[in-house]
Amino acid sequence: MEKSIVLLSGGMDSAVVAAIASQEHETYFLHINYGQRTEKKESEVFLSLVNYFKPRKYLIITMEHFKSIGGSALTDTKIDVPYGLSEQGVPPTYVPFRNANFLSASVSWAEVIGAKKIFIGATEEDSAGYPDCKKGFYETFNDLIKKGTKSKDIQIVTPIIHLKKYEIVKLGIKLNVPFHLTWSCYKREDRACGRCDSCLRRLRAFKEAGISDTIPYTNE
Amino acid sequence: MEKSIVLLSGGMDSAVVAAIASQEHETYFLHINYGQRTEKKESEVFLSLVNYFKPRKYLIITMEHFKSIGGSALTDTKIDVPYGLSEQGVPPTYVPFRNANFLSASVSWAEVIGAKKIFIGATEEDSAGYPDCKKGFYETFNDLIKKGTKSKDIQIVTPIIHLKKYEIVKLGIKLNVPFHLTWSCYKREDRACGRCDSCLRRLRAFKEAGISDTIPYTNE
Repeated sequence: MEKSIVLLSGGMDSAVVAAIASQEHETYFLHINYGQRTEKKESEVFLSLVNYFKPRKYLIITMEHFKSIGGSALTDTKIDVPYGLSEQGVPPTYVPFRNANFLSASVSWAEVIGAKKIFIGATEEDSAGYPDCKKGFYETFNDLIKKGTKSKDIQIVTPIIHLKKYEIVKLGIKLNVPFHLTWSCYKREDRACGRCDSCLRRLRAFKEAGISDTIPYTNE
Repeated sequence: MEKSIVLLSGGMDSAVVAAIASQEHETYFLHINYGQRTEKKESEVFLSLVNYFKPRKYLIITMEHFKSIGGSALTDTKIDVPYGLSEQGVPPTYVPFRNANFLSASVSWAEVIGAKKIFIGATEEDSAGYPDCKKGFYETFNDLIKKGTKSKDIQIVTPIIHLKKYEIVKLGIKLNVPFHLTWSCYKREDRACGRCDSCLRRLRAFKEAGISDTIPYTNE
């Protein structure tokens, strides 16, 4: 089986991508802590997903620079995480060029272990408008890999990039994804806030898919 | 003055680029520790260069993942740093996709502080054949920035990419670069080994430029 890396945040999208990759690949799961508000919870979720999917190997990386750089509501507690769905433009939860940092580390690891594919759960259509979640960004990244690596043949794969969030839920149900283990909230680690952009998209997706979301939400 | 980031390893090339950038920009110096053999020495050199050039601000980032990933003679002590000039192909001192990781972090910082240029001392013609030191790699990286950032107008600048090493020495002398503070050796931190690819290129460059290199070399 081909070796593949799966970038796994612990959110519902990356869990579905982990299930897709696990079908036909020898998987290497990669989780990145970057000083985000829900870092601890996401690490725990990642380990639960490791336990569930049983990859060949997993790695947790800490990228300390996002915290020292700041500039995002996710990494700087002085910037509020807004409530409500983000409508247009790039919201304050955008972490500058985050996914380029994540993909670069993934490619470095892939080159060492001989993995040829890197799976990431980016979604373009039903997301907060982050520039580093769009198809064109990943296409250019694949060009960059050809130019800047020794092996040249590593590829970023984005299997759910054109799916709507409710379609991701439906696909996940088909693939037995343990959605109850995943976490999407930007803000809280004990119970999901239910009001940030990420919670609202998740709740809407489950509703539209006709599936109940069993993670705990706060009533506060 | 325009804000610019300078990626500074502490080697002779990046010191010359720091001098170039300092002429017309408000500079922000960035140094990255990545578990390389000479990490401690390079950090000290960086701080000496900060003291010399007096940037507006500086930042030292530690990227721990290169050490845990390994796969390079610079980050894995089980892989020998070869003596002699590297002739063809990619040498074992290649750190997989290292510069993509460095540039990604630089772009993240640039976006937060509003810098529009990132200077890097990559050299294509007179180097060890690293794929992430070639012009085409940086051109594609600039496309990636346009696609993957909110600001879109940050640019990687490679002012010495087509210079031969001896031309870099001559330019540095003209710009009063304190070459005595810089460090190029891949292997040692006390005295330069004088025999690794990086030392040999440095020594040859100074010789061809007719300038004496005053850093200490070992006789062992």
